[in-house]
Amino acid sequence: MSKNVPTYQGDDRLVELLRAAGASAALSDVKELLAGIAAAPRPLDDNEWLRLVVPSADETLRAQLVVLRETLAAEDDGIGQAGASAARLADLRAALGRQGLDGFVVPLTDEHQGEYVARRSRRLAWLAGFTGSAGLALILAEKAALFTDGRYTLQIENQTDGALYERHHITESPPYSWLEANLSTGMKMGFDPWLHSADQRHRLSEACTRGGAELKPCDANPLDEVWHAQPPRPLAAIVPQDIQFSGRESAEKRRDIAVQLKQAGAAAAFLSAPDSIAWLLNVRGADVECAPLPQSFVVLEADGRVQWFVDSRKQVAELATHLGNEITSVAPEALGDALDSLGAAGKPVMLDPATAPDWAVQRLRGAGAAIIQKPDACALPKACKNEVELNGIRAAHLRDGLALTRFLCWLSTLDGSEGVTELMAVEKLASFRAGGAHFRGPSFDTISGAAANGAIVHYRVTPESDRALEAGSLYLVDSGGQYLDGTTDVTRTIAIGTPTAEYCDRFTRVLKGHIALARARFPAGTTGTQLDSLARQFLWQAGLDYDHGTGHGVGAYLNVHEGPQRISKHPSRAALEPGMIVSNEPGYYKAGAYGIRIENLVTVVAATGLDDAERPTLAFETLTLAPIDRALVDLALMNDEELDWLDAYHAMVRDRLAPEMAPWPDVAEWLAGAAAPLDRAPV
Amino acid sequence: MSKNVPTYQGDDRLVELLRAAGASAALSDVKELLAGIAAAPRPLDDNEWLRLVVPSADETLRAQLVVLRETLAAEDDGIGQAGASAARLADLRAALGRQGLDGFVVPLTDEHQGEYVARRSRRLAWLAGFTGSAGLALILAEKAALFTDGRYTLQIENQTDGALYERHHITESPPYSWLEANLSTGMKMGFDPWLHSADQRHRLSEACTRGGAELKPCDANPLDEVWHAQPPRPLAAIVPQDIQFSGRESAEKRRDIAVQLKQAGAAAAFLSAPDSIAWLLNVRGADVECAPLPQSFVVLEADGRVQWFVDSRKQVAELATHLGNEITSVAPEALGDALDSLGAAGKPVMLDPATAPDWAVQRLRGAGAAIIQKPDACALPKACKNEVELNGIRAAHLRDGLALTRFLCWLSTLDGSEGVTELMAVEKLASFRAGGAHFRGPSFDTISGAAANGAIVHYRVTPESDRALEAGSLYLVDSGGQYLDGTTDVTRTIAIGTPTAEYCDRFTRVLKGHIALARARFPAGTTGTQLDSLARQFLWQAGLDYDHGTGHGVGAYLNVHEGPQRISKHPSRAALEPGMIVSNEPGYYKAGAYGIRIENLVTVVAATGLDDAERPTLAFETLTLAPIDRALVDLALMNDEELDWLDAYHAMVRDRLAPEMAPWPDVAEWLAGAAAPLDRAPV
Repeated sequence: MSKNVPTYQGDDRLVELLRAAGASAALSDVKELLAGIAAAPRPLDDNEWLRLVVPSADETLRAQLVVLRETLAAEDDGIGQAGASAARLADLRAALGRQGLDGFVVPLTDEHQGEYVARRSRRLAWLAGFTGSAGLALILAEKAALFTDGRYTLQIENQTDGALYERHHITESPPYSWLEANLSTGMKMGFDPWLHSADQRHRLSEACTRGGAELKPCDANPLDEVWHAQPPRPLAAIVPQDIQFSGRESAEKRRDIAVQLKQAGAAAAFLSAPDSIAWLLNVRGADVECAPLPQSFVVLEADGRVQWFVDSRKQVAELATHLGNEITSVAPEALGDALDSLGAAGKPVMLDPATAPDWAVQRLRGAGAAIIQKPDACALPKACKNEVELNGIRAAHLRDGLALTRFLCWLSTLDGSEGVTELMAVEKLASFRAGGAHFRGPSFDTISGAAANGAIVHYRVTPESDRALEAGSLYLVDSGGQYLDGTTDVTRTIAIGTPTAEYCDRFTRVLKGHIALARARFPAGTTGTQLDSLARQFLWQAGLDYDHGTGHGVGAYLNVHEGPQRISKHPSRAALEPGMIVSNEPGYYKAGAYGIRIENLVTVVAATGLDDAERPTLAFETLTLAPIDRALVDLALMNDEELDWLDAYHAMVRDRLAPEMAPWPDVAEWLAGAAAPLDRAPV
Repeated sequence: MSKNVPTYQGDDRLVELLRAAGASAALSDVKELLAGIAAAPRPLDDNEWLRLVVPSADETLRAQLVVLRETLAAEDDGIGQAGASAARLADLRAALGRQGLDGFVVPLTDEHQGEYVARRSRRLAWLAGFTGSAGLALILAEKAALFTDGRYTLQIENQTDGALYERHHITESPPYSWLEANLSTGMKMGFDPWLHSADQRHRLSEACTRGGAELKPCDANPLDEVWHAQPPRPLAAIVPQDIQFSGRESAEKRRDIAVQLKQAGAAAAFLSAPDSIAWLLNVRGADVECAPLPQSFVVLEADGRVQWFVDSRKQVAELATHLGNEITSVAPEALGDALDSLGAAGKPVMLDPATAPDWAVQRLRGAGAAIIQKPDACALPKACKNEVELNGIRAAHLRDGLALTRFLCWLSTLDGSEGVTELMAVEKLASFRAGGAHFRGPSFDTISGAAANGAIVHYRVTPESDRALEAGSLYLVDSGGQYLDGTTDVTRTIAIGTPTAEYCDRFTRVLKGHIALARARFPAGTTGTQLDSLARQFLWQAGLDYDHGTGHGVGAYLNVHEGPQRISKHPSRAALEPGMIVSNEPGYYKAGAYGIRIENLVTVVAATGLDDAERPTLAFETLTLAPIDRALVDLALMNDEELDWLDAYHAMVRDRLAPEMAPWPDVAEWLAGAAAPLDRAPV
């Protein structure tokens, strides 16, 4: 669609066009809806959100709505304004004074405790200027403190004002200790009960008590009172997730969860995790970046019926039929009354204290409900993908592998003299992914780290940090896509020019760990904690290690990080079960020099070829399809079993991708070499 | 000392002899002391306990005392009497009625929560006839239930009366659920607060509350009231543990623990774990089987001073000098008053709720003490052996390895036609150990399992179960010794005659796991949980596993099982630290057929030979010295690194043991072959 950028022709013209298209809503309602749409991430295409406004629009109306949405989305929400922190902090303190509070907690999370939040929930970024993905602010009348983890200690120093905020490492100098030390007797510390889980409130409350103070829930968030340009709640379209992708009807899932409720003695469950709700109802949305999540709340009754507390403006027309008559959409404002009714009926309600907002817990408790605290009942069945989901995930990985392989082929043409930078590489990779069927956007911001930037585990390239891919360096690229049929996440580390012996030694130790995990068989009941050291053992032999987990769960066109399973040294009670997806991503990082990570997604399957097995035994099937850089493999460190695995993996990559490569014969030719068996050294 | 068995010549003669030897105690006191001595395990020699009675005894007095001790030790305590259970249960119920109780808990543990208990504490064996090492009885007026784990489900069926007791699996059908289901409102469930830790009482109490009942501490144990032949408390001699073995003065240890107390804000610590007290005070005793432990209690003040609540009759004369003036011996009866004083002074007292008897916790709390619940402060420093201890442990392993190697040489002469049985093998092995310097007895009952008996992980041979070591079978022997300078624990599995291919396959998988753990390097901070799968991975590859942990901590002439470290799939927060001793004992068990286990003790050391190490890295030094049966190694399954390890291990065994083998040239010759390098198959 090449055309001139249209301009907005005025409200009267818009009303006229809307009426002509059969839309009867008041202009103010349309504009409010558009503001909500603009408060959600930019949509991949315009077809879905337009239908929220009007059933069908001609080109002229469509252009007017698009330009209006763009205008609203471009409005300054105040985040990123230099020099505003002092005034905002003063405003917030004044608002606290009006509410009779001596302090306030500003978390990074929203009502749903997810990894990504909508623009309106970026309160800490607005208040203090900190844009990292982990942190917390504690505000008192005379002092304030920011807390973040080791990934962001430099960033928080750069982004925030040390005259306004103490900056602390969140585990070495925890906010709870700070509270205890800085509160004094009789003080009232405010918090927004929507933004803290029941568990978090419990810990905050204990810290306040130790400091002699009281933790007080705020009816209205005092920061929201003073953030005048705060965007509204996001209103991204909620669409059905088709049975061809989900593989199981919502009714079936709800019946299974209802059985769990009955076993736990609960009459209902309260759900607030967006991925649980999306999975349960077979719907997807777009209220936050990088994950297809609608924000809403659910009360699931023990008979499988659902009250879904969701803004009806977000629902596309065909959703009602998709949901059926056991799912009742209710306005979000009615949630409180619904919880009161549960309480008044004396019903035991199950909820997950790690995710449920404290607001809901207190409301239920106040109304007389018995609370049964249990992990989110959807988490485990959601994690165990069904065959339809797995087939979709395999298909998504084929498309994603094709895109990544085209990118790796392009990378292979570089010798480091081209001036190609990390940002240019991100764009190149995005362009390859964009063409794939069912592609819906990245599953997280691409990590594109050349040389020393590759050693920053959670590196996000910015124009300031951008550096070139130079000869004799390593380049690490960790990226993933959201597809209607699956979510991907893959990391490759590539030698630009000729690698050093040290690069090859470290890469091969990481690869041997990756292979040990990929080849592992293990009895049913084994947790990721038990498998973690398999991936680290060869680094450990050399006195090396990496400071992150080895694997995280991955959703099916849902969050790229999901539980309950993970592979990590931290104790976990969640066994690896068939159908779970988990990443296999050991790494090695030399600060100031280079980073290495090799990441494939795998799914848990029943082990095959075991004639004498005495126990139900599981194994991993590797899903990711992209070559691993053979130039970095030190053959002297590899044993035959490891070489067998690598050759077989490359043969699978070649066999699966080759039939899709007709449009790109040069890539096919490159892959034939890149995925060829390795020469084995004669013994 | 070959002589006729003397007979007791009467009390008058004894008094006469005692007076002549300068002993002034009343006869009744002497007899009470002897009864206590007889209630402890049979001493290895008579020199120590005799000194408790009289400073020096001539041959005649000595003989009279020995025969009196033997007579008292032979008195029937009622344990093992067939057909007595019904009457005893009725007696106990009558006693409960007299105390106004509706039920009672009978645990297997004593006041010190150790692995071994004295004869007077074998209440469950006396009451119900069950002699296993894990279990619990719940007694109500109309019904009663016994609980044990999978090791003893058969044994409890055989030993106890199903008409009197329901028999339950302790994890599948937990006592807490049974209580909840069988108690009713208003019932009073009694328990002896000396025999349950604070943690255990807490769980019992919760179960009673859920059942509508109340858990009531008994002032006097109602079972003890009706067990008329219950032996008295054991009175085994407590002797100094010389600095040449302990390596650190008690005063130094106490100062270190005192620092911990201060850091925790405690004014004193209450200790009840016998191995902690023995370590702290540098003393050893013999109140229970297999471990050199005196039973006592300690209050350690934050200045390093100790009140030691211990029966003064147990202390040999030179102990007072050894203890010095910072350790005050106090009669055990004074413990309550001492705790009251701590409470009255409002002192915060640290104790371990996993081991401290509930009696002490309630007494402290009742007196107004603040309780600081922390793991036993001695556990970690005790686990990290100092250089003197490690040298002693190495020396003990040399002697122990010599004894075991002589035994293995003897075994190698068997072809299965000799009719040698498990019991005969136990005696043979014991005879080899008995001659070693500093030997003080077995560290646990030897597991001697031929063929199918080897598949019973905690097998203890009895005359009924005894079977011959037959041709074509495997023989598993797990044994250990207590030496003044160290504690050993070693398992070897031996082919009798020609092994089958399956034996070799399974043995080699176990061996590969053993080697993977022995060769492991790991960063400081790593727990045994993280290493466990290294030992299992080769069994897992074949769909096999074993149902026990891979390693347990071991004391220095203390308990053969100690914490906090272990190697197991169960989550542990205790990092492996230099100087810790841990067993490396993967296994494989085919029920009804055979068992395999290969166990060495290892100690944690700093890894050596790492030029590029970036992190403090640890490794294991293997302590155990005895050949591993080369006939069971399937060379086709072993890689070069594994063969290198095995050859190097055998070279070490040969090099260390050979100089000690002058008296046994045949054993030396056999070992030269048994520990020779393996032939490597040409590739």
